[in-house]
Amino acid sequence: MPADQALVRRANLSLVLRHLHERGPRSRAAVAAETGLNKTTVTSLVAELQARGLLKETGPQHEGAIGRPGLPLALDGSAVGALGVEVNVDYIAVFATDLGGRVLIDRRVSFDAMSCPAERTLAELESIIRQASDGLQALGVHLAGITVAVPGLVDTACGLVVVAPNLDWHNVPVAAWLSRRAGQESGELLAQVPPAAPGMVATAGGLVAGPASAPVGGLGAVDGPQAPITVDNDANLAALAEYTATGVPDLVYLTGEVGVGGGIIAGGRLLGGADGFAGEVGHVLVDPGGERCGCGRIGCWETKVGLAALIRKISPEQAYGTPHQVLRDPEERLAELQLLRAAGEPGVEEALAEVGRWLGRGAATLVNLFNPRVIVLGGYFAQLAEALIPVAQEELERIGVAGSVARCRFVASDLGFGAASRGAAGVVVQRVLADPTLIAVRP
Amino acid sequence: MPADQALVRRANLSLVLRHLHERGPRSRAAVAAETGLNKTTVTSLVAELQARGLLKETGPQHEGAIGRPGLPLALDGSAVGALGVEVNVDYIAVFATDLGGRVLIDRRVSFDAMSCPAERTLAELESIIRQASDGLQALGVHLAGITVAVPGLVDTACGLVVVAPNLDWHNVPVAAWLSRRAGQESGELLAQVPPAAPGMVATAGGLVAGPASAPVGGLGAVDGPQAPITVDNDANLAALAEYTATGVPDLVYLTGEVGVGGGIIAGGRLLGGADGFAGEVGHVLVDPGGERCGCGRIGCWETKVGLAALIRKISPEQAYGTPHQVLRDPEERLAELQLLRAAGEPGVEEALAEVGRWLGRGAATLVNLFNPRVIVLGGYFAQLAEALIPVAQEELERIGVAGSVARCRFVASDLGFGAASRGAAGVVVQRVLADPTLIAVRP
Repeated sequence: MPADQALVRRANLSLVLRHLHERGPRSRAAVAAETGLNKTTVTSLVAELQARGLLKETGPQHEGAIGRPGLPLALDGSAVGALGVEVNVDYIAVFATDLGGRVLIDRRVSFDAMSCPAERTLAELESIIRQASDGLQALGVHLAGITVAVPGLVDTACGLVVVAPNLDWHNVPVAAWLSRRAGQESGELLAQVPPAAPGMVATAGGLVAGPASAPVGGLGAVDGPQAPITVDNDANLAALAEYTATGVPDLVYLTGEVGVGGGIIAGGRLLGGADGFAGEVGHVLVDPGGERCGCGRIGCWETKVGLAALIRKISPEQAYGTPHQVLRDPEERLAELQLLRAAGEPGVEEALAEVGRWLGRGAATLVNLFNPRVIVLGGYFAQLAEALIPVAQEELERIGVAGSVARCRFVASDLGFGAASRGAAGVVVQRVLADPTLIAVRP
Repeated sequence: MPADQALVRRANLSLVLRHLHERGPRSRAAVAAETGLNKTTVTSLVAELQARGLLKETGPQHEGAIGRPGLPLALDGSAVGALGVEVNVDYIAVFATDLGGRVLIDRRVSFDAMSCPAERTLAELESIIRQASDGLQALGVHLAGITVAVPGLVDTACGLVVVAPNLDWHNVPVAAWLSRRAGQESGELLAQVPPAAPGMVATAGGLVAGPASAPVGGLGAVDGPQAPITVDNDANLAALAEYTATGVPDLVYLTGEVGVGGGIIAGGRLLGGADGFAGEVGHVLVDPGGERCGCGRIGCWETKVGLAALIRKISPEQAYGTPHQVLRDPEERLAELQLLRAAGEPGVEEALAEVGRWLGRGAATLVNLFNPRVIVLGGYFAQLAEALIPVAQEELERIGVAGSVARCRFVASDLGFGAASRGAAGVVVQRVLADPTLIAVRP
């Protein structure tokens, strides 16, 4: 096929697969009528998608039956897995689905990434990915890809974390590192491993060089452990998960963790910016006379509304910085905080109101600039939504430009801690829907 | 045709027209190969686009010649006009092109919209649009549409200016008003004019009800003065003009006028937000202890970097607020300021440096949130770029998050005052490229 025709073919494979993914099972004739593709083309595309294990015929099944045009088609992909892993200051979360969205893994483990060197955290990540990959393989599911979520600025083309202030990571080549480890352990392909460089695609069971936008490792993905690894910002991935869950095309997602990140969905698309660094809400200057932030600057929004700031307000002696405190799971720490509230501990309600007011002030800037329909509060913000939202909403309406704020509401995310790992797995699913040729034809 | 097929047909007409618009003249065979459409379809689409006067065959012409497949095709549209009109605090700008981008009108008139009631300004706008429309008609060009640029929050679906603080406009139904005027003067169609309501499409020579996204008035546009009128924010339109001129897909455009607006291009698309209100940079809070803004709040960015703020710093007695000062053209006022600079007038350089520093501070927030490759300075910022940019760039790099700012540069726009009118005409061209059936088949 000429290059242009191959592109058209790939786009049409994606069109048919997405159509069935979004609209549900239907016949070849219906797919043809609804997409505008002609019937012969649809028949050929469907045959290829079946050969790649992505579609199945529904209705009565006969052994050895050959595809009949009248039978409804449905997305299959039950043997194709998508893995998302999120590393945060105090936990690592893992989430996996098959292509149809069936949840295969959903767990979170406490991990003190804040007081570890980057290599220790990466080793832990690698071990968790290997476990998950083995677990999926035992289920007959082969990984189509892995996305790692990190709370920092990520060069997505290279899988490089440029800076993650709260992890104290600077220029950490996550994708390359994870791949190199895998290569060393399997004792093969190591000689072919180039150092972290733009345009390299890392895979969990070895390394394949090629442009990141068209991972050549993907073709082998269902035949072995060589799933391409990509890296993205945690808040961006959580925003995608929230968009998938709610369908609201203009939303801002805020991660309430030790740090505060933002993911922006605008017109149904993730706002990436020129380098994938958009949405760095935590380090927007809100108080020139305020406190010093983990990033070294003064008066960042995160120093007003981050979990560390809240804990410092309530009990300065429990402030972050000691490994002992960090090692505890965020849910556990919040349960304790709820107990303090219930006990009428002095200062707790005022500390929450103060965080709520600063949430509203910062949100006014976000609303003026992005005009979202909702601001979704994730992480600890969601757990304390009842106390934070009324104050934040009032402050937003007091400060924001009329019109913009009138129809914007704070809402609490239902996705809990680990929303980013869910979004990370979703990214892998979307990648396959966009290019079904990433999944190899079955032997 | 079934509805789905009509949609596919329209999309394919657009595909062919855009292809020729972007890649230049080529044969039907080349169009077929490059778009993936089959040759029979391309022949039929081309015939329809020719009947609508949007394509022509190039090469040797014979009287009465019938289209021959081998002849190269090119965009025509020389009889289809796009009109953009910008109302600002102290001027009205008009810009018109044909579909191929040939500039037909480009002028700006001083007008004191700041001290006029809205109706007076709208009457002036209407008169200017009528003149332009008549002028184009005399050239044999029929208007496909009119877009009005306004410095404020615009409900684009209704053509309603929700608020334009520096014009003191609140809920001004610009599209409906302009159409009603046109209806009254021509003495017809007035009975059919509904009050401003969602989903209404206003046309300069009458009113046609229908959804704004598919203006039914458009079909008659080349047969008379009934060009659909849409309204949008001035900075958004200027950003589109800048994107068209430079091709940079991630940029922030700042209008340096009495007020300061922002238009955001993200991933090659204008960022609208849920209501089209995104990019309200002028009223982002930057100094809680600062001055009161025209919008009523304290410490908006515009109070630090707007033209009024600069003039107030240099010569408080010349501050805005007196009609005499406002009536002068911004270029004239800036020429005077340059003379003051050249004469070494005390305070001028320091005032410019102060504005430059605040430009950098506000820009740090924009860079953290949007991660643009460039920040384009329009209006008066462009005229004084030499003095403002070095200071602003230094401040941006001092404050912004590492990584994000490393590759973002301030640049001065080449488009001058009136960039928004250029973008406004561009929007009309894009609308026709997206849906060529807006242009009627020639009788």
